[in-house]
Amino acid sequence: MTKVLPTAQLTAEAYPKVKRNPDFKILDADDLKFFQTFLDNDELIHSSIAEETASFNQDWMKKYRGQSNLILLPKSTEKVSQILKYCNENKLAVVPQGGNTDLVGASVPVFDEIILSLRNMNKIRDFNHVSGTFKCDAGVVMRDAHKFLHDHDHIFPLDLPSRNNCQVGGVVSTNAGGLNLLRYGSLHGNVLGLEVVLPNGEVISNINALRKDNTGYDLKQLFIGAEGTIGVITGVSILAAAKPKALNAIFIGIDSFDTVQNLFLKAKNELSEILSAFEFMDRGSIECTIEYLKDMPFPLKNQHNFYVLIETSGSMKKHDDEKLEAFLSSALETKLISEGNLAKNEEEYNALWTWRKSVPPACNSYGGMYKYDMSLELKDLYSVSEAVTKRLNAAGLIGDAPKPVVKSVGYGHVGDGNIHLNIAVREFTKEIENLLEPFVYEYIASKRGSISAEHGVGFHKKGHLHYSRSDIEIRFMKDIRKHYDPNGILNPYKYV
Amino acid sequence: MTKVLPTAQLTAEAYPKVKRNPDFKILDADDLKFFQTFLDNDELIHSSIAEETASFNQDWMKKYRGQSNLILLPKSTEKVSQILKYCNENKLAVVPQGGNTDLVGASVPVFDEIILSLRNMNKIRDFNHVSGTFKCDAGVVMRDAHKFLHDHDHIFPLDLPSRNNCQVGGVVSTNAGGLNLLRYGSLHGNVLGLEVVLPNGEVISNINALRKDNTGYDLKQLFIGAEGTIGVITGVSILAAAKPKALNAIFIGIDSFDTVQNLFLKAKNELSEILSAFEFMDRGSIECTIEYLKDMPFPLKNQHNFYVLIETSGSMKKHDDEKLEAFLSSALETKLISEGNLAKNEEEYNALWTWRKSVPPACNSYGGMYKYDMSLELKDLYSVSEAVTKRLNAAGLIGDAPKPVVKSVGYGHVGDGNIHLNIAVREFTKEIENLLEPFVYEYIASKRGSISAEHGVGFHKKGHLHYSRSDIEIRFMKDIRKHYDPNGILNPYKYV
Repeated sequence: MTKVLPTAQLTAEAYPKVKRNPDFKILDADDLKFFQTFLDNDELIHSSIAEETASFNQDWMKKYRGQSNLILLPKSTEKVSQILKYCNENKLAVVPQGGNTDLVGASVPVFDEIILSLRNMNKIRDFNHVSGTFKCDAGVVMRDAHKFLHDHDHIFPLDLPSRNNCQVGGVVSTNAGGLNLLRYGSLHGNVLGLEVVLPNGEVISNINALRKDNTGYDLKQLFIGAEGTIGVITGVSILAAAKPKALNAIFIGIDSFDTVQNLFLKAKNELSEILSAFEFMDRGSIECTIEYLKDMPFPLKNQHNFYVLIETSGSMKKHDDEKLEAFLSSALETKLISEGNLAKNEEEYNALWTWRKSVPPACNSYGGMYKYDMSLELKDLYSVSEAVTKRLNAAGLIGDAPKPVVKSVGYGHVGDGNIHLNIAVREFTKEIENLLEPFVYEYIASKRGSISAEHGVGFHKKGHLHYSRSDIEIRFMKDIRKHYDPNGILNPYKYV
Repeated sequence: MTKVLPTAQLTAEAYPKVKRNPDFKILDADDLKFFQTFLDNDELIHSSIAEETASFNQDWMKKYRGQSNLILLPKSTEKVSQILKYCNENKLAVVPQGGNTDLVGASVPVFDEIILSLRNMNKIRDFNHVSGTFKCDAGVVMRDAHKFLHDHDHIFPLDLPSRNNCQVGGVVSTNAGGLNLLRYGSLHGNVLGLEVVLPNGEVISNINALRKDNTGYDLKQLFIGAEGTIGVITGVSILAAAKPKALNAIFIGIDSFDTVQNLFLKAKNELSEILSAFEFMDRGSIECTIEYLKDMPFPLKNQHNFYVLIETSGSMKKHDDEKLEAFLSSALETKLISEGNLAKNEEEYNALWTWRKSVPPACNSYGGMYKYDMSLELKDLYSVSEAVTKRLNAAGLIGDAPKPVVKSVGYGHVGDGNIHLNIAVREFTKEIENLLEPFVYEYIASKRGSISAEHGVGFHKKGHLHYSRSDIEIRFMKDIRKHYDPNGILNPYKYV
């Protein structure tokens, strides 16, 4: 299962109950001819050979695969508008696609939908270094936005492991979270304006650089996290933060999740404005990671039930170090924590982060893993992990080979109330699957949490929305979708 | 004009072109009887004597006055739901009302709309001091939310001059900005969940305390700033920030607005995470304020073209002071600024803020003022003030009595790109008015700014939306309103 498969099973075959909507037209030669009238050669890929379109049809996890033979890669908002207008009038279904790095099958076709890639819209439009407002095309790769802003003493207000591939428009369309949310807040606060092409080809452009605008409904908000179901984002205006001059980190061993919460409270009070990450990992996460990282020296002497990685970023290293040292010594003195390791330089800072960032690949290294991304009120955050472990243990599934489950572990962003649950397995079995689902979703629903904290809905979680949303909300979401896209041409078979 | 008038002119008389919508039913005895079946005595005021309903019918500025003789003050979400369901079915128009402190005539009836006051829904529902999530009824007065959170070492993420009267639900409904936006961001980022009663009585409740939730469209966002046109907010969940332990301020004299911008950049870089306000005032603002505050010693030796008030808030006073002192001395040494005064204690801190907070009453002290609230890209922020002054000067209207205009001044929140333009007058004249409008709005439109940065739309700016929004956006807003409230019973004659 760790093997890279050449291709995923066709989604249409893997999910035979999902049927192609017969209202959608099947692409024909006239359609193609029309697109060729205004798109250049490098703006259109037409091929019925699966290999030639594989990178567009198949998702990043190789779990879903569509059968589109037309990929359009327009270079301008006007061309996006012409494409959508035509598709809407002719009922041709369309999947908008950014960097195609999503984890829920949102950005690839299910059947023969035309793929509308934003990758050729990759220009930075404007930056004001005084206000920090940054405007760019939707297809700008996040890494490039980071690099540009870094060179101008600013930072893009979020970062993701997929930064080398994901695009700014995709990040906004999926309301991505990432590691900096605790400090810089969500995209609903940071996005200042959007340029969006509606299904009928109309362009709503409020891509201004204003921090405040109270002239009516904040229309851009609905497109943030809409996964391209009601319009295609072609331009983004976002607030960049000043680049911090000092970064630091501590790695801490803790006995209970209650103490993790108390330590978070202490950090909020004492590190306050310089606190930029507060991540936790349980014992199992680190046990897997110790095996995975083999020769890398572990930063603490003993093993603990929980580990916390705290990051600070500020404008003066000396001050940040003083605050962190005071924080660490008082936490040790009052026996709130058992031991802690404060990075002394950039190398140590990076090493501490390696222990956090290696948890997912470590869990995946035994064969494969079941993965959940959930948010809960902080007091309940770890309880879902305990409940799942208990359940798998009761069934006798966790242990040394030949038992199928190596470990069930929990880790995530304490500051955001977001836990990632990884069940590291030697093999995928129906028995494990049946124990996990719908149990996990029902558990989250009982605690009024979210079954998708940051990964979104896409194809994968469309049928699970009712665990986190009421019937009224779901009906309202369907109404909104229908209202914006009456022919339903945008990203069909997904979301709501 | 500074005199407090007993009552404003009836809006219906002042704006004869606005006609009552004949589709709306006129309240009758049966309606009243129905409301009395489930509302207690203290939840219903019915009177045709204007004095008895004046505080509900008339706005805070005494510019607008409605003629409602029924005020409903339900104590529960369920009762709000019953009220709206009945009104929707019977086409009775309704104005939702919070603290009735808005500045655009949004919260009072135009004709005989029933007033739905949230003031009896005033319970704090829940607070989690670890995550900082705060849940309350919509009718909780902002001052009480501040006090509660203050007692729990947190702060409400925004503050307003109207804090003693405005309500949390009203603040969210109008997307209020205030002085802390630079640090804590907008309500679109801070509001975690809302409980909203729709016009048909259905309750959409996602008043959770989750910081991340990517399960479909973020429905709550549309209600933030919707001014009660598509639903009535009855509950709010919001992220409270840790209470800063240290507050400090500097008052600075500057020669040009270019330098104001450069100083802001320097502050972003050097004060970065502790910067909590960056306010500017022009020479005229301070000249008026010096006259107004009379005996209060001015914090600087000389007069300047611009003044800046910088506030910091952080978790360690010693560190903040060091950063501020370093910032001030390097700004003086490099001659970026002419002089500055750093508060040495709380009294001095408060005194410095008095100079900023007294600008509006100072401008109003000569007789009255025309007031605009706009946002622009930072580079253009002050230009609107210069353009207006030039125009009034060219017409020979500014000067000593008997000239009607005392001064035209600009001040505001540099960090938010928000300028308040006050034209201090001895009397209101048609000539001034015709010089100001539509000139000011057209100027803002030409720079792609917002004609309402934080005050909203209401009755006052309904006709002006096209200066900041495109035809497509306005049509979309109308569609959304119609979609949520097909009978148009909520807050009619306003917004869009």
